[in-house]
Amino acid sequence: MRAGPSQEEIRRHNLGVLLRTVHVRGATSRAELTTRLGLNRSTIGALTSELAGAGLVREELPGAGSPVANRGAAAAPGRAGGPGGPSTPGRAGRPSLLVWPESERVCALAFAIEVDRVVAARVGLGCQVLDRRESPRLPGRLAVDEVIAPLLAFARNAVAAMPADGRLVGCGVAVSAMIRQDDGRVRLGAYGGSAEDPLGTALAEALTGALGQPVTVRNIADLAVLAEHTRGVAVGCDNVVYLHGDGGVGGGIIAAGRPVTGHRGYGGEVGHMVVNPAGRACGCGSRGCWETEIGEHALLAAAGRDLAAGAWGREAITAVIEAAARGDARAKAGLSQVGDWLGFGVANLVNIFNPEMVVFGDTIRDVYLAAAAQVRSRLNRVGLPACREHVRLRTAALGADAALLGAAELAFERLLADPLEVVA
Amino acid sequence: MRAGPSQEEIRRHNLGVLLRTVHVRGATSRAELTTRLGLNRSTIGALTSELAGAGLVREELPGAGSPVANRGAAAAPGRAGGPGGPSTPGRAGRPSLLVWPESERVCALAFAIEVDRVVAARVGLGCQVLDRRESPRLPGRLAVDEVIAPLLAFARNAVAAMPADGRLVGCGVAVSAMIRQDDGRVRLGAYGGSAEDPLGTALAEALTGALGQPVTVRNIADLAVLAEHTRGVAVGCDNVVYLHGDGGVGGGIIAAGRPVTGHRGYGGEVGHMVVNPAGRACGCGSRGCWETEIGEHALLAAAGRDLAAGAWGREAITAVIEAAARGDARAKAGLSQVGDWLGFGVANLVNIFNPEMVVFGDTIRDVYLAAAAQVRSRLNRVGLPACREHVRLRTAALGADAALLGAAELAFERLLADPLEVVA
Repeated sequence: MRAGPSQEEIRRHNLGVLLRTVHVRGATSRAELTTRLGLNRSTIGALTSELAGAGLVREELPGAGSPVANRGAAAAPGRAGGPGGPSTPGRAGRPSLLVWPESERVCALAFAIEVDRVVAARVGLGCQVLDRRESPRLPGRLAVDEVIAPLLAFARNAVAAMPADGRLVGCGVAVSAMIRQDDGRVRLGAYGGSAEDPLGTALAEALTGALGQPVTVRNIADLAVLAEHTRGVAVGCDNVVYLHGDGGVGGGIIAAGRPVTGHRGYGGEVGHMVVNPAGRACGCGSRGCWETEIGEHALLAAAGRDLAAGAWGREAITAVIEAAARGDARAKAGLSQVGDWLGFGVANLVNIFNPEMVVFGDTIRDVYLAAAAQVRSRLNRVGLPACREHVRLRTAALGADAALLGAAELAFERLLADPLEVVA
Repeated sequence: MRAGPSQEEIRRHNLGVLLRTVHVRGATSRAELTTRLGLNRSTIGALTSELAGAGLVREELPGAGSPVANRGAAAAPGRAGGPGGPSTPGRAGRPSLLVWPESERVCALAFAIEVDRVVAARVGLGCQVLDRRESPRLPGRLAVDEVIAPLLAFARNAVAAMPADGRLVGCGVAVSAMIRQDDGRVRLGAYGGSAEDPLGTALAEALTGALGQPVTVRNIADLAVLAEHTRGVAVGCDNVVYLHGDGGVGGGIIAAGRPVTGHRGYGGEVGHMVVNPAGRACGCGSRGCWETEIGEHALLAAAGRDLAAGAWGREAITAVIEAAARGDARAKAGLSQVGDWLGFGVANLVNIFNPEMVVFGDTIRDVYLAAAAQVRSRLNRVGLPACREHVRLRTAALGADAALLGAAELAFERLLADPLEVVA
């Protein structure tokens, strides 16, 4: 329990709120900011000037155009708000100045270390992807240095390519693994390295020279839901269960508007909720985990595919779904079975969290779309009426880069919490 | 995203924080308040005077004694802090005044409508139980009026018995049922009434004359965990899973320091997480819910008791546990089986929430104590190492009245959020 803030703390808080508003909404008129923040025009003017002086925002008359906005690199379709966009309602008299995030000059590095690929991006304030590179993951089990090598190469190039007055404010990393929150240590995961890899420490050490900014590492589903909640399908939803499939199954949870990450950052491991005690052995050492019924292997096995032939991964799942669409009976039966188990676990999570929305992401998105009837049917049988009656089942809006964008959000968080502390 | 507060909002916030501090900690010295709130002595003095003027706190020299504190009615053993208690460290010079909550004068009504009993209490600020009455629940299915009749009778007497300068600030109700948060409507539950009972509205209408204060109704496990988190075993734990057993099984969840109640208030229905798809039919319409494996009926059946004989309830569970302690083989086997399933579901919740602590309350507490080895053993097999390695398994500290005290906390919440708004 802390006493209320000082005047100086309030000013810094307000600077952060204003910057966060243009970061999330894109260009926003002073008039709109006045309404949204509940502050008077002169205060908004003073805050904007201070942020502009620090190189974090700039002001333009509506319709003046913005080279950055016109790049078409907005992360979230339809939300960045181009010139004359949703933030500039028609008003009589002098038009209100638009406040733009300085997306070209203020940026973060975002990395995603996934099961079958590694993605790196330089992302501008406002979550505009300015530069992005993706490479397939090297096969086999890798040492930490091998995992992070392509990221470091990208980081060096990205920093070299930045404008002279550019400023890097942080680095966020999404990993398909259980990640210890304090130091980014890997505890369990399929991302290509080993359990106990000191991923956070290694990245921080290697990047310190290039960045001089903190590196923050988090689980991929936790970051994907952060992105979907900030600028995707779950905007405005305070209670969200996000399911991420990439071979295994992970969960990212928002409750009462805030992430449920647990005591050490391991929260949301819904793939290891046991749903079938009589089921198959799981890689985690347990048996009948949800992942063993709805993960990649489960679908391929249920569809009669030859796992020994090594046809795993995204393409193999797509192949099953396409075969089912063509009428292949084994593929249809497999999808039906997996869809039933998907609905089963969703019902459990709906009973536990009473969410407004369940979001299906990555490969789970495709499975859901192909078996939505089974999912809904099982949900209706297992979910408590009160918990399920208002829940919306939706697919992720940000596509395969949701976690990458979430990593960028994470990287910007320190700046948005206290802008002048970071850029001073 | 809101801008920071005004000076007036900060002052009101600080009044709330100070009042909350003495409510939670009991009598607290001005020196301690200065440290805890991070405010200077004159500000603390001014805030205290204002609260004293409103009749919410009083100040005394340490050792002056307090008739209220000496009643021995403190709700939480060892935490209310009698005169000269933990809040008055030895200091040279003039002793710092102790700030006491006005427990006799400022109070709330707390009700608990449970499966086998109804409890009503008048609870003073600081959560001191001043007056308490318990009656067994009437048998059979009851109309709303019958459910609330004993509570209304208590409320009338409690209000009549209050000191002339006493002030009632609210009424909180814990119900063994799923409760819609906005209006206190019952959706599913074993509390004696029916689904769709307008419990909240009926209580509010009936009590408005007596109270002139809002009535807030919540699920019993949600309130029990609130109490354990505020002044019980889970003080200081930001991630807690609380399990409440009273025939069925309910959960109360704290994540990142805040309650997980879900979109409409139904969150935490962990008893209806399906753990055994091949299991028994559940009262909710599904099959193999956790409740069907660890609830009262499951234990009695596993221990070979004759359910048709009607020996249900708390006494029947105690009888099984005592029989096992005497060496009864059927009772031991039954407890072992239920303990295994208890550990199974706990492991799922540990994987989903990564809590610091799991708290076993009410009848689940007794089952846990009798089968802790099975619980821990199954948790170790099903729980992910990273999630379970730091989790503490504990029993509730506040006993059978945890939910009643949580209902009182709920009733005080509006006062603590903005003291002068409520007592003005």
